[in-house]
Formats: sequence, C-alpha cells, structure tokens
Amino acid sequence: MKNLKGACLFGQSGGPTSVINASAAGVFLEALKHEQITDIYGAEHGIKGILEENLVDIRKEDVKELELLKNTPSSALGSVRYKLKPLNVDETDYKRILEVFKKYDIRYFFYNGGNDSMDTCNKVSKYLQSQNYECNVIGVPKTIDNDLYGTDHCPGYGSAAKYVATTMMELYLDTHVYDTGMITIVEVMGRNAGWLTAASSLATLKGLGPDLIYLPEEHFDVDEFIEDVRKVAEEKNDKVMVVISEGIKDTNGRYVSEYLVSLDRDSFGHAQLGGTATVLAGIVNEKLGIKVRPIEFSLLQRCAAHVASGTDIEEAFNAGKMAVKYAVAGNTDKMVVFVRDEESDKYKINYELVAVEEAANTEKKIPGEWIKKDHTGLTDDFYKYALPLIQGPSNSPTEDGLPRFAHLKKISAKK
Amino acid sequence: MKNLKGACLFGQSGGPTSVINASAAGVFLEALKHEQITDIYGAEHGIKGILEENLVDIRKEDVKELELLKNTPSSALGSVRYKLKPLNVDETDYKRILEVFKKYDIRYFFYNGGNDSMDTCNKVSKYLQSQNYECNVIGVPKTIDNDLYGTDHCPGYGSAAKYVATTMMELYLDTHVYDTGMITIVEVMGRNAGWLTAASSLATLKGLGPDLIYLPEEHFDVDEFIEDVRKVAEEKNDKVMVVISEGIKDTNGRYVSEYLVSLDRDSFGHAQLGGTATVLAGIVNEKLGIKVRPIEFSLLQRCAAHVASGTDIEEAFNAGKMAVKYAVAGNTDKMVVFVRDEESDKYKINYELVAVEEAANTEKKIPGEWIKKDHTGLTDDFYKYALPLIQGPSNSPTEDGLPRFAHLKKISAKK
Repeated sequence: MKNLKGACLFGQSGGPTSVINASAAGVFLEALKHEQITDIYGAEHGIKGILEENLVDIRKEDVKELELLKNTPSSALGSVRYKLKPLNVDETDYKRILEVFKKYDIRYFFYNGGNDSMDTCNKVSKYLQSQNYECNVIGVPKTIDNDLYGTDHCPGYGSAAKYVATTMMELYLDTHVYDTGMITIVEVMGRNAGWLTAASSLATLKGLGPDLIYLPEEHFDVDEFIEDVRKVAEEKNDKVMVVISEGIKDTNGRYVSEYLVSLDRDSFGHAQLGGTATVLAGIVNEKLGIKVRPIEFSLLQRCAAHVASGTDIEEAFNAGKMAVKYAVAGNTDKMVVFVRDEESDKYKINYELVAVEEAANTEKKIPGEWIKKDHTGLTDDFYKYALPLIQGPSNSPTEDGLPRFAHLKKISAKK
Repeated sequence: MKNLKGACLFGQSGGPTSVINASAAGVFLEALKHEQITDIYGAEHGIKGILEENLVDIRKEDVKELELLKNTPSSALGSVRYKLKPLNVDETDYKRILEVFKKYDIRYFFYNGGNDSMDTCNKVSKYLQSQNYECNVIGVPKTIDNDLYGTDHCPGYGSAAKYVATTMMELYLDTHVYDTGMITIVEVMGRNAGWLTAASSLATLKGLGPDLIYLPEEHFDVDEFIEDVRKVAEEKNDKVMVVISEGIKDTNGRYVSEYLVSLDRDSFGHAQLGGTATVLAGIVNEKLGIKVRPIEFSLLQRCAAHVASGTDIEEAFNAGKMAVKYAVAGNTDKMVVFVRDEESDKYKINYELVAVEEAANTEKKIPGEWIKKDHTGLTDDFYKYALPLIQGPSNSPTEDGLPRFAHLKKISAKK
C-alpha cells in the first residue's frame, strides 16, 4: 500500500448511463480535497485519450459545473470502445500509456466502466506494476446492464430501472385506453443479463406491469412465446403487454433479432432495420392476427437523466469519491463495489473493494429462482432487491423548462 | 343562452396525452361546485360509452383521486376512435344518444379531444338542437399534434413538446460520446402538422439540438434529404442528428413510411403511420455507408406524464374548468380556446370560446415563415411561441419511487 504524490487521471468507457458523470463529479470533487493529488486530468474518450494525449485540465473547470455533472447524462469526457490487445500480442499501447503516465506524473488512475473497462483497467495496472511504475489504479463500476461481478448492483442500473418501470406504467395506461385489442411488445436493453428487462416488473407492484417478460437468462422458444401471448390475449380481450430483452436467444443460441435477415425487404430492396421487438411483432401478428405494436426503448433508457433515481445519483457519486479515498489511502488494482448492509433495518450501502481482475469479464445474471417459470415476471426477491435502487427524485436543475446540464470548458492539459 | 338544470356528462376521445385527465379533473371538480349540475357522469370510451350506456358515477369517486387525475396520463375513462355517420346516412346512433341523454337527464355535455372529436361534438350538438332537446355542449381541446384551429395551442402539446426537447438533449449527449461516426434519425408523431417535430428545435437553444428537421408542412425529397445529411456528415465528422415527422410526404403526396409497406387505415381513414425513421435509415446507410440508428419516440411522447409541463397541466385543467363555467353560464356549441394575451409582459392565457364546427376537421399548420428553408430548424418566432408552453415542473406525486396515478372506482351509473 503506497501513499503516492502526483497527478490523477480519470477516464470513462463503454456505453453511457444517466449517472456516469455523477461518478466523474465524485472523483473530481474528492480529488480537489487531497494535497497529494497535484494535477487532475480527464482523458477524452477514455483509453484513446491517453494514447493520443488528449487530456483536459479539470482544475480549470468551475466547481459549479463539476457539481452539475451529477445530473448530466452520458459521458461528459467522451467514451470509447477500445480493447487493449494482450500484452504478449502487442506491447505498443502499453508502452505509450506508460510514456504518457510518466510525462504527466500520473500516480492515480481511475477508470469508469463495465466489464470490458475493468479488463482495460486491470491490464494497465498489471503492466505499470511490471514496469515498476508506481500508480494506484481503481476501477469505478458503471453499467445499466447491472451485470458486474462482486457488487450488489452497479451505478447506472437504478436510474435505467426507474426509467423502465415508470415508462412501463405510462405505456400501460396508454395502451389500455381503447377497448379494441392490441399487443404491445417492448424491447429493453441487456444483451446477456436481464436485470433491466426485469425492472419492468416493478410496474406490476402498481397494477400496471407487463403480462409477460422474457429474459436472456432463459432459452427463448418462439412457439412457446406465441402460446403464452395467445393465452393472455384470450383472457384479456386481446390486450397484452410483453417485455423482452434485446438479448433473448433460442435453444440454438441464435439471437431472435437475427431472424430478421429472412424477413421482408421494402420496395427499395433494403433489409428492414429494427430489433427483436419488431421481429416478434411480425411473427405474432401473422400467427394471431391481432394488431401488434413494437416499442424499443433504445438509447432513451440509458440517458433519461430527467427521471434518474436519486439513490443512484448519490451512489454513483460516492463510487467516484470512494475510489479517490481508497487510492489515496494506498489501495490499487481494485474496483469499488456496493455491499448492502443486511444488518441495517433500512436500505444501506457500504463501499468496499474487490480485485479488479475479478470484476473484469465476469457477468452477473439474475438468480434462476427469482424468475417465474411461466414468463409472468419476477418473484418478491427481485422486488426487494430492486425497489430501493429507484428511490428518490433526480432533482435535476432546469433552465427555461429544459435540463441544465454541465458545460465543461475541456481546456487541454497538453504539455 | 340557456341556464339549464340537470346532469353533466363528460367523455374522452382520440389519442391519449399526458394531461388529458387534467381536463377531466377540471370538468369534474368544477361541476361539483355548481348546484344546477345534479349528477356527474363519465362516459367510458367516449361516444361508445354513451351508445352502450356505460356511464360511471363521478360523485362516487374520492375527490383526492380526482385531483390525482392532473398527473395521470392517458384517458382515465377510456378513449375511442368512432366516427358518427352523417345524419342523412344513418340516424341510428343519434337517436340512441338522444335516448340516453333523456334517460339520464343530461343537460351538459363535454367532449374532450382533437379535430375528429370536435366533429363528433358538433354533430351531437346539432342533432340535439334539431330535436329541441336542451343541452349545453362544449368541446374541450386536446391533442399533442397542436393542430386544432382557433386556439393559440392545444392542451397536451406543451408536455409532449417538453418530452421531445428534453429527450433530444439527452439523446444528443448520448449519441456524441464516441468519436466514431453515427447518424441518428429520430421520428416524432404528427401526421399533417409538424408542431411536435418542431419542438425538437428547442434543444438547439441549449446547443444540443438536431442538425436537420423535416416537417410535414413541406414536401420531402429523398435525394435532397440525402444531400443535406451528406453535407452535415462532412462538416461534423459523420455525426448527424436528424428529426423527422412521421407524416413527411414526397412530392407525389406519398408518405415516406409507405415505401416500406402498404398501409392499414384506421376507421377515420387515416393511414396508420410509423417506421419512417427505419425506412430512411436504410436508405441513408446504403447511400452514405455510415452507421445509422433510427429511434421512434412512439407512444412515449404522448404519455410521459413524469416530465409533463406544469404550464400544460394547469392550462388543461383550466380548459375543463372553463368549459363547465361557460356551459353553466348558458353557452353551447362551442369549444374552449386559449388566447395569448399579447398586451401582457408575461406569458398569459385567456380562456375564450369558438364555434365548435370551426374547430372540427380544420388543421392548423406551422406558418411557412417559421420554417428555415434549408431544413436546419425553426426561426426565433417558433421559440418565442413554444418556450412558454413547456415551463414548470410536473410535480407528479410518487409512491415507492414510482408515479402515483389516480385510481378511479368507476362505479356504474346504470339506471
């Protein structure tokens, strides 16, 4: 455990969330408090910004704007999807990173992202160690997918879950106004884990939830699906609400969205674009002859900061803040995790650490026993788990009736 | 002008909005104050509920729940798309309506909807007059499309506009996180008037608006569109945000969405639109070879009560309230309209009346001089017009982190 003096560097990676910048605010505002942190840099577009030496000087930002990052969605510094090659394949990037770290005297490195980003974090950390370059490296978790290993949940999930549950309730009312039949198929993000799709079931607690939910944790069978929908349609006067994960796969491991290739082409000969919900809408309409409307939440579910969870914002901020505290205290090679205090009467999170390599590339899925086998939703265990995560208003500041997002100057720190 | 004593009946019709129930709350809570209004009925599924005698007794509802209608999206009594045949074609429905009105002693009839609903309102009113049945009939406007004639704007528009502008800002941030190219095509509702699509330009005031906007008020030319997108892509490193109305038509009057499939038509003869963004995404991707993501706001834009405009909620409530006041004062055959007080320094609305037949089936479009000819957006005139309509928070009550919508008992009033 080394207590180092030098600059700190923060980067964002992977898909945006509503609260990813709350973690940035946590890192920056905490870093400003520590004397041994000399300069504070932000890497533009994550690891790519380091490789290309595109660093911004956070000390030149207004503190008020850094505070506003708490309610500003998406990655304020820019994100990236860039996978470092294994060291034994190509050392070039690693050498360059070390060079930049030396040039800017980076002694604290914080990387904010999901599984892949933790992999990057781990590789960088291990390489720096192998070169005897002293730098405390801490990963800050982030993903709406909630699939990071070792943490009760991930920053970003609560807000996306709140968006999904809230919107589901509103959609339920909208799709039930006419007394004519309609099947609605809503597609939610989550390639391999169904946490976000499952959040739609929270609307069920208010009587406005979906009739059927399909998660990527289970094999998807089209015939069974049609039968499920037919049954609900018969019971409910052809009014059915279905929620599916974009990542549902059939028993052959084939994504349902891949079925699209064989579907109709329009008059220009283009393949029809669209996702899993569109594919299933076509099949259901053909088989059952009922009007079907596919709805994709698309990017909206991960950037709707206006309906973010207050709890999520606070926890995302704390994740960044604690990363700095732990690093300054001499920890390295770790990721901040949320541990739910089971002793506490009220919901309470403790911020702890796990080895970053444990978090990298491991996916956490919904426990099988939380999933109802008849596809009608989730058990009480899931509600107990997820409900605390969506509590509290976003308290997003507005200006002229519109969100007041942070404006960063992003002054280059280039030396 | 007749000052009548008897029951009042309220019905909702057409597509839902975030604030349509605020007008219901206005009608009900005001009606409760007037002695000459004996019973208060709500028609389930609009005119259909009258024909089928499915009326609910509003006096049996909790006032607290009626208040909660202000923040409950979609039509709480159920809606309908049912077009009365012209009287000279078939008198059946008219006779049945008169029968029900007589049975329940309906002396005040309020119908809440858009152009088609005002047509219904007008037909019913004229028939009752022809039969010497005394009943004051007042239309209450509603439509996210904002295309009703004779009113500064329509209840429902401000909230949908706020959703569109807010979400546009969030999407802008989301779609600009990577430094790789992507063209985003967002599809907004509005068959023949582009008011809601135009609302996306409000995000431009905050630097986070679309590069290009296509409205149904202008002919859409695919080749010109591709050229517009190509130009922005060249200037902006292949990052382009486009917003289109679902109702854009080519010079032959053909909907762009028709390029994909032949259209179903609903009972009003309107084409069921959707999928325009998807069609264009396919074409753009083929012509420019850049990644394109189509996003449909779909039903979300008309039911997102959690981000409703406070101004819109208040005005929608007042529209209902004033309908009752005007009817009790002896007015009939009218629709409540919003008149902007141009004398006032601050934005201020006066609630006046126009003949309901003027409002019926007339569409108000965006003035041509407000639309920039190079498809880059709207002029300051539009901003000045639209900005006041999205002001103020929704103040939607929540419970367990989720919306607390009204629960109506809907006790049958059947005699």
